Amino acid sequence: MPELPDKSSAFMDWYLAVVEAANLTDKRYDVKGMNIWTPYGFLARRNLDDVLIRGIERTGSVPVEFPALIPQTEFQKEKDHIKGFDAQVYWVTRGGDSTLDVPLVLRPTSETAMYPTFARWVRSHRDLPLNVYQIVNTFRYETKTTRPFLRVREIHFFEEHTCQVDEEAASGRVRSNLDAFAEMARSLALPYVAVRRPDWDKFPGAHFSIALDIPVGGARTLQIGSIHHYRENFSKPFGIYYEAADGSQRLVHQTTFGLSERLLGAVVAVHGDQKGVVFPPSLAPYQVVVIPIVSAKASADPRPAATQLVESLRSHGLRVHLDDGDERPGAKYYHWELLGAPLRLEVGAREAEHGTATSVDRLGTKRTLGPGDLVSAVREALRAYELALYDRARVAFRASFTKAERLEELAGSTTVRVVPWCGEETCGHRIETAIDGSLLGTPEGELPVDLGTPGPCIACGTTPSTRWGLAAQPL
Amino acid sequence: MPELPDKSSAFMDWYLAVVEAANLTDKRYDVKGMNIWTPYGFLARRNLDDVLIRGIERTGSVPVEFPALIPQTEFQKEKDHIKGFDAQVYWVTRGGDSTLDVPLVLRPTSETAMYPTFARWVRSHRDLPLNVYQIVNTFRYETKTTRPFLRVREIHFFEEHTCQVDEEAASGRVRSNLDAFAEMARSLALPYVAVRRPDWDKFPGAHFSIALDIPVGGARTLQIGSIHHYRENFSKPFGIYYEAADGSQRLVHQTTFGLSERLLGAVVAVHGDQKGVVFPPSLAPYQVVVIPIVSAKASADPRPAATQLVESLRSHGLRVHLDDGDERPGAKYYHWELLGAPLRLEVGAREAEHGTATSVDRLGTKRTLGPGDLVSAVREALRAYELALYDRARVAFRASFTKAERLEELAGSTTVRVVPWCGEETCGHRIETAIDGSLLGTPEGELPVDLGTPGPCIACGTTPSTRWGLAAQPL
Repeated sequence: MPELPDKSSAFMDWYLAVVEAANLTDKRYDVKGMNIWTPYGFLARRNLDDVLIRGIERTGSVPVEFPALIPQTEFQKEKDHIKGFDAQVYWVTRGGDSTLDVPLVLRPTSETAMYPTFARWVRSHRDLPLNVYQIVNTFRYETKTTRPFLRVREIHFFEEHTCQVDEEAASGRVRSNLDAFAEMARSLALPYVAVRRPDWDKFPGAHFSIALDIPVGGARTLQIGSIHHYRENFSKPFGIYYEAADGSQRLVHQTTFGLSERLLGAVVAVHGDQKGVVFPPSLAPYQVVVIPIVSAKASADPRPAATQLVESLRSHGLRVHLDDGDERPGAKYYHWELLGAPLRLEVGAREAEHGTATSVDRLGTKRTLGPGDLVSAVREALRAYELALYDRARVAFRASFTKAERLEELAGSTTVRVVPWCGEETCGHRIETAIDGSLLGTPEGELPVDLGTPGPCIACGTTPSTRWGLAAQPL
Repeated sequence: MPELPDKSSAFMDWYLAVVEAANLTDKRYDVKGMNIWTPYGFLARRNLDDVLIRGIERTGSVPVEFPALIPQTEFQKEKDHIKGFDAQVYWVTRGGDSTLDVPLVLRPTSETAMYPTFARWVRSHRDLPLNVYQIVNTFRYETKTTRPFLRVREIHFFEEHTCQVDEEAASGRVRSNLDAFAEMARSLALPYVAVRRPDWDKFPGAHFSIALDIPVGGARTLQIGSIHHYRENFSKPFGIYYEAADGSQRLVHQTTFGLSERLLGAVVAVHGDQKGVVFPPSLAPYQVVVIPIVSAKASADPRPAATQLVESLRSHGLRVHLDDGDERPGAKYYHWELLGAPLRLEVGAREAEHGTATSVDRLGTKRTLGPGDLVSAVREALRAYELALYDRARVAFRASFTKAERLEELAGSTTVRVVPWCGEETCGHRIETAIDGSLLGTPEGELPVDLGTPGPCIACGTTPSTRWGLAAQPL
């Protein structure tokens, strides 16, 4: 096995190599940018879906599933939306030998699939809020270079769509989505920043967009999700009215919340190291790998104790793999480090005899567990590992932002930059040119940087800035 | 609410009405035959998926997911397969403004998506068996009349694909699939018959096909799944070779196992009655509905006891809904019978005081649960209900087959007919004409009919029959 490229100096090479070495995906499918979910990658994705499902259903959202194909006539109803997606959709034009009367779009996102139906489902204020979500695959005819999990043509996608009585209620749903995402990100041990995108970079058709961004080394960032407030921009063309308590007919205000398999890519990118993937327990296909250390010299066979430990951990709901293959223990350690298993438990003759296990977590912390209640001890070790992983990520996160007050400082930035910005688009584009990237927008909430009050705009230098902007190089 | 059409005399009208009244799907989507999974229907589907996942993973199959789009070049590699599907696939011909160099098929099934990759994954006999499955949506440009869950254009589909060392091992996998399906069907309380399809009706490209059929009233049957033995029919064109222990290169033998949302339709069709859907506990979105019976005359408010009961049942893993709305209890009973909730628990002042609950299951059995351990009592009531449901279905199943020995008996059949058949295709088609339906094929294993030895073929009357055939009118 060749060594992985250096993460800090050759990030994307490292990322591609680690995804391939850990066999999270198979990129050799005959349509470029459409990858195969291998069993190991699929199990991680299933765990990710569970995190999202638990997180969103706790807020009262209910699952639905709308068709994958959208008639051209519906797709074109909101003019900014169609402008934003027209160049990157796949068209179904034939069924069997017949040309379809109305061409169908393979959904790039589901606004135009859902909203004609919302107009039927919503009749009265008693039907509101309508909070529904689906986890489906979406399709984009991507022309940029594709990267597993980060930019693909068939995307595993989470999308919540809601209808609210008015703009304020919709803003409340945006805040509730932000809270829900905070919980989800916490269970992935991912620190992130919520950023209100500038107007020229919002979602096609949105009133405003809040993106969820993470730094991934240098000035690079990765958008891992977004929350949009649509106001009446879609409800008007789709005619989603309700009868208010006073009998009047009103348009609903809408929001959406989008996440995707990029979260899996983010976990690899943020936590991974030179040995391979590092999974948080929430996502790991196997949270614990038990390895019996068989030795010809030892008096006792540790395998029965190892098997019993596996069964006992499984019966308590943990995902456990027993690696009783013929390879040397060292080869197994190497393999499971590459695959990112949070905890490995070594059970040799001595451990079997004393009812203990030697635990080594993916960050290298070694512990002797037991004798006594091994299940609780394993749970405790996983919890400690998760906290340590989150702490490590937060240290790196805090070091990823620095302030800049002059435009010339932005060239060659080795962190994401926090800059005073007057809010004007012209100045925004000058900042983007200076950092050779994007103005991500204005952070919502605290930043891990000591800021003070923003001085004059970094670009025009005259107008007093009312806000901070984040300048970065998005992947 | 109007009454449902009569199930026994107007089955399909009844089916369509009950699916709509229980709001399991919304058929008003703008592409005919592509329906919307409503929240209630989706929850039932999610539970169905869980039954399938548990059942197949217990046999050592692992999940994968292959892309939804298949290049025309791969799709056309197996000649019978392409002949069987060519007229009913959707074609993606454009991406953005460009015409695609190679048109893409929206998968109708995934043989041709997976097998080029299997040729890369399988190298040696140590890679075998390869047992993988996926649950995805498939697409068929269906020209027949569509029916929710039974015949749709976007199909929620379960497909296992396996590679085995030789024909015998593949036959072993077929048997193991049959065993796995027996478990799945049991947890849906669905009796069924496994039928080896005649050669003219097997899956395009298969060596042989075993279908899983259920009777649904009169001579009607519904195919709810299938298991296929491909021999080397696909491994040859796709080049799936392995190195055997003796160093020789051999073609794998393949099998597949397919199930779909039809199982949900089957549950509605088999268990449903004039009051609505009847869910087995495994599938029910809510296994238990708790209804507090509030009365102005009663001394005590039962709502705290009802809420506590709900929480206690939920904490033990049951899916529970608290219906504390303003409707009269009678309206709630009616509603939850229509939606098929297995158990409703009524908690009035008297029950609250005594720590009991009045339980009425969906088959009408009334019990007083408690005082004492209500969780165990509820579990016991659900178990008894499930058994009663299965018993009822088996009684109807047994009455759905009768023997016929003369061709003239087949016209106007009010059951599925078991007939002696010589095995010749010409005779098969004569039987099909006589019953105005299909010869389903030869049953595998026991039938719930006293058969004896088959006499001469019912069609040609001369050749001694070696087997029984099932003649029916498939939906």
